[in-house]
Amino acid sequence: MRGTVLYGPGDIRFEERETPKIVEATDAVIRMAATCVCGSDLWPYRGLQPINGPTPMGHEYCGFVEEVGSAVKTVKPGQFVIGSFATSDNTCPHCQYGYQSSCENREWISTAQAPRLRVPLADGTLVATPDAPSDDLVPSLLATSDVLGTGWFAADAANVKPGGTAVVVGDGAVGLLGVLSATQMGAERIIAMSRHEARQKLAREFGATDIVTERGDEGIARIKDLTNGIGADSVLECVGTQESMMQAINSTRPGGFVSYVGVPHGVELNGEQLFFTHVHLHGGPAPVRRFLPELIDLVWKKKINPGKVFDLILPLAQVAEGYRAMDERRAIKTMLRP
Amino acid sequence: MRGTVLYGPGDIRFEERETPKIVEATDAVIRMAATCVCGSDLWPYRGLQPINGPTPMGHEYCGFVEEVGSAVKTVKPGQFVIGSFATSDNTCPHCQYGYQSSCENREWISTAQAPRLRVPLADGTLVATPDAPSDDLVPSLLATSDVLGTGWFAADAANVKPGGTAVVVGDGAVGLLGVLSATQMGAERIIAMSRHEARQKLAREFGATDIVTERGDEGIARIKDLTNGIGADSVLECVGTQESMMQAINSTRPGGFVSYVGVPHGVELNGEQLFFTHVHLHGGPAPVRRFLPELIDLVWKKKINPGKVFDLILPLAQVAEGYRAMDERRAIKTMLRP
Repeated sequence: MRGTVLYGPGDIRFEERETPKIVEATDAVIRMAATCVCGSDLWPYRGLQPINGPTPMGHEYCGFVEEVGSAVKTVKPGQFVIGSFATSDNTCPHCQYGYQSSCENREWISTAQAPRLRVPLADGTLVATPDAPSDDLVPSLLATSDVLGTGWFAADAANVKPGGTAVVVGDGAVGLLGVLSATQMGAERIIAMSRHEARQKLAREFGATDIVTERGDEGIARIKDLTNGIGADSVLECVGTQESMMQAINSTRPGGFVSYVGVPHGVELNGEQLFFTHVHLHGGPAPVRRFLPELIDLVWKKKINPGKVFDLILPLAQVAEGYRAMDERRAIKTMLRP
Repeated sequence: MRGTVLYGPGDIRFEERETPKIVEATDAVIRMAATCVCGSDLWPYRGLQPINGPTPMGHEYCGFVEEVGSAVKTVKPGQFVIGSFATSDNTCPHCQYGYQSSCENREWISTAQAPRLRVPLADGTLVATPDAPSDDLVPSLLATSDVLGTGWFAADAANVKPGGTAVVVGDGAVGLLGVLSATQMGAERIIAMSRHEARQKLAREFGATDIVTERGDEGIARIKDLTNGIGADSVLECVGTQESMMQAINSTRPGGFVSYVGVPHGVELNGEQLFFTHVHLHGGPAPVRRFLPELIDLVWKKKINPGKVFDLILPLAQVAEGYRAMDERRAIKTMLRP
């Protein structure tokens, strides 16, 4: 088969790779219905994260089970399934505690921008839909695999509650779905920080009540203005830079909650400063598996439409253009179909 | 009156100072029943935190109300009262949210090692006992003012729950009362990290089930051993150094809770490392006022005896020896009586 490989900054190729097959008895192989490009894929694409030679790419996926290993019990060939970027046995103490992305047997999925994918720990990783989905549901089902699951975790980790005020720092697809998640969790006021018109519009569609275009200290001052000088109850940090992290922390009320869900790049937190902000801080790789059944159900019943973040849909063979469009911020998120 | 003044590293003097009086209509002046030396007083005493000239000391206090300003409504002369190191109006949004130590009108108490003390915002800061206490209750009532309130916040912020496993990093008085607090909150297993025999003994009296003497990576490995490789549900960081903070974070299970209650000195947290630990982090100056009514009630009913941390009781005039004994770790905590 042909799949996606990153050779170096800006150099994405779609080229011949070995077709995945069952290796362990706990594996499944799936035939991709759709995959996509993640904001985190842009770090190495931009040369901001080193790679060791040609690197297959992709960790968001949904599709039909083609084959399962002899030990797999809960999914079977023909089913439509979705999984997370982190595989999980869903039985170890960390999984049972709700942190499947820290599973004792975790592996990172990293070859999903391809027509076929081997998924280790299939029983604990994959969740099947009730039936084969209609085509219009595929983008939203794909979104649950990471970008919605991560936005949902951001809202959950920031303790978004009915009636509360949430701020979302970052208008990438994760931030936008953080807005959608905060809406679902009942936030009364949702302030999206964005300077980009198309993203502002989608944020409003997803439930944002206010848009703040300022950044840094001005952005913090604006949030304070909008919250009677108090600061927000919940702030979702969906970028991963020093500036965005400090903006999030300093926009939060004392005793409020900051979540951070993008891998921090070059972020250093001063202990004494953090101490006097009085915030709760929680983040990490989203334990998407915890939320998948609920998120799939919400999509299946058409209560949410997270697939709207895919504003560019391309054939998988044109993956290089999919990366370029996101890198240049022409697209919020690129979906790829084999 | 004579009160305590720090002149420089190791130089504590008990000397003539102006007697406090009512300044604002919301003030009270109290006659000290007992005050004490805090672990945090040792930072400037050791020259590890700069001072600007001679500095009055002390922020833990209990005693009888002598006089109140014209606007004070809830406490009156003759009552025995306890307050926190942070004054609070107890009505602003931060107070109402339970973070009285970030009150919009907060002042830091800093002159309490003296026979008289002016307490601003008396109504929102001071809590009266049901009656004048018997002398044997005074140490435990004094403890609620900071050291117990801070240990209690540490356990609360680390989400200590019935049946859970808690680790306490630091065997100072705050850490020891973190153990007591975790016991009260129902932790099934409480691991105290201590190398000091008298403190280990008191930790066990307060409910510690295990003692770990190792530090750093060895300490972390020991905690992992004791928790079936999982890590602790709750870790209370009660020191404030880089080493103790990293020991706390790395002893916690993914998704577990780390609290930190001592002002961090020179602590820097790497965002990416913190991200992959998956811990919750929460701390800051303890909102003691939130807990005072409950803690006073527990002491009043003799359900807890936090006053045991005072293993040295001196006349206030001998305050310099009180500092020395704590600095040299001859005493866990020094109580001072006018």
